[in-house]
Amino acid sequence: MITNKLGVHALVFTGGTGPDDVALAVNQAQTAGYDILELSLHDAKNIDTAAAKSALTDAGLDIVCSRGLAFDADISSDDPAVVAKGADLLHYSLQVTHDLGGTLLTGALYSALGKYGHALTATGRSNVVSVLTELAQEARTKGMTLGLEICNRYETNVINTASEALTLADDIGEDNVLIHLDSYHMNIEEDNFVRPVLLVGDRLGYVHIGENHRGYLGSGHLDFTSFFQALAEINYTGSITFESFSSAIVSPTLSNDLAIWRNLWNDGSALAAHAHGYLCALLKANGNDK
Amino acid sequence: MITNKLGVHALVFTGGTGPDDVALAVNQAQTAGYDILELSLHDAKNIDTAAAKSALTDAGLDIVCSRGLAFDADISSDDPAVVAKGADLLHYSLQVTHDLGGTLLTGALYSALGKYGHALTATGRSNVVSVLTELAQEARTKGMTLGLEICNRYETNVINTASEALTLADDIGEDNVLIHLDSYHMNIEEDNFVRPVLLVGDRLGYVHIGENHRGYLGSGHLDFTSFFQALAEINYTGSITFESFSSAIVSPTLSNDLAIWRNLWNDGSALAAHAHGYLCALLKANGNDK
Repeated sequence: MITNKLGVHALVFTGGTGPDDVALAVNQAQTAGYDILELSLHDAKNIDTAAAKSALTDAGLDIVCSRGLAFDADISSDDPAVVAKGADLLHYSLQVTHDLGGTLLTGALYSALGKYGHALTATGRSNVVSVLTELAQEARTKGMTLGLEICNRYETNVINTASEALTLADDIGEDNVLIHLDSYHMNIEEDNFVRPVLLVGDRLGYVHIGENHRGYLGSGHLDFTSFFQALAEINYTGSITFESFSSAIVSPTLSNDLAIWRNLWNDGSALAAHAHGYLCALLKANGNDK
Repeated sequence: MITNKLGVHALVFTGGTGPDDVALAVNQAQTAGYDILELSLHDAKNIDTAAAKSALTDAGLDIVCSRGLAFDADISSDDPAVVAKGADLLHYSLQVTHDLGGTLLTGALYSALGKYGHALTATGRSNVVSVLTELAQEARTKGMTLGLEICNRYETNVINTASEALTLADDIGEDNVLIHLDSYHMNIEEDNFVRPVLLVGDRLGYVHIGENHRGYLGSGHLDFTSFFQALAEINYTGSITFESFSSAIVSPTLSNDLAIWRNLWNDGSALAAHAHGYLCALLKANGNDK
């Protein structure tokens, strides 16, 4: 019995977020053995929350919501109007997550998900801290947690390493703001797969597992052995969610934001089942089979 | 005696491309023991070619020029006017390289250096093939070679893997178009550091060595041992150039294009000397000490 809950990103199964798409993702996540479905809120207004919550409940699946902001609704901007639009998007996304029955909203909550043309400014960083402090306080009233997902340099200019994320979380200073590590981004930005885990320690709130090229786990070169040994070292008991993206499953917006140009697989269900077995094997090898 | 020529990118030393900057980069590259200076042509019109060539000749250094295109001058566009501007930039850059005494123009010659918001179109790809075929034919009349640098998904949507680069080179069909592998980009896109080298084989024309986070070689997690063993396996005798970027040395344009937000080192000269020793050690360990 694996004690960490295992999740899978909905874009493994479908690029849409309408009721039929969510039902399909729920069904396929459950079939592949997962405990959690992760749903991106990039087009949150399209989601039928009542239908989605019902599908999740019927399947006995937990939900985690994730998102990045947009360049015209960005709390790391210097422009107060753009910051306000970003803050609105975050508060709305927190409510959607809550309505879906989720307790964790994570992702690049602190900036647009995209390539910036300049470094973060001091004003922009101060805006991030102030908006996320308010959001964390609101989240606490709902019994919810925020995750700061650490993304690579092409997806944000705010935090690219565990060290930078911890400093940002310190500046926010709310204990329901946790760190979210992602092996795909760590591969680009961190020294290795051990130091960031030990550095974050018990402030680690969520983990994404993706291969270096975002394809089948084990078909790239990432050192998952070291990563899972480090997670065992800090006694991480939280959720671990699999992500993989291929041009075979397209979201009209998110796939372009993530620069998914290549076909790395065609069958999301087969991929998800393989990843579930792979993650269980890694966890079991590290003593998690109580 | 190491037989591969070793190079270093000018942005290790200076963010400018004026005569004093080029003289400084030439001097520091030579001091650190390199055979080649690589100069980006992102602001080619600023370069005093006569002064630069004289500095290179005095120091006994070879020159390699590299560049990406821009979104308004992009041969992978569907818009004939944008393609024409990109073609003009390439022909101008070929001439500048020639004037500097160089015989290799390489980089993302096939697209803007940046994050695309959509996948490559069939028309765009056809435009790439047609413009690069003409450019290669012009290069041949000058005794010059073109390199197709394989960049990651956030820097181009045209070619992200060795396999895709070989197909593009086949479609161009000119034997003075060679493949340029870069360990930093391979880390994101390839299965590992061996397969692409064996796949490219004797069509490999140039190599960039950069750490996963673009800092000191050996301070990240890249498997340079496997990469250099693979280069030895195909008897690669070409040039190998070190790249590293830190917010300590800023080009007003190129640093933002490359998303250089972090300070990974302050002293480019010390970095370059370290990398030269590191590369020599890797080559010597693989029998290259004739």
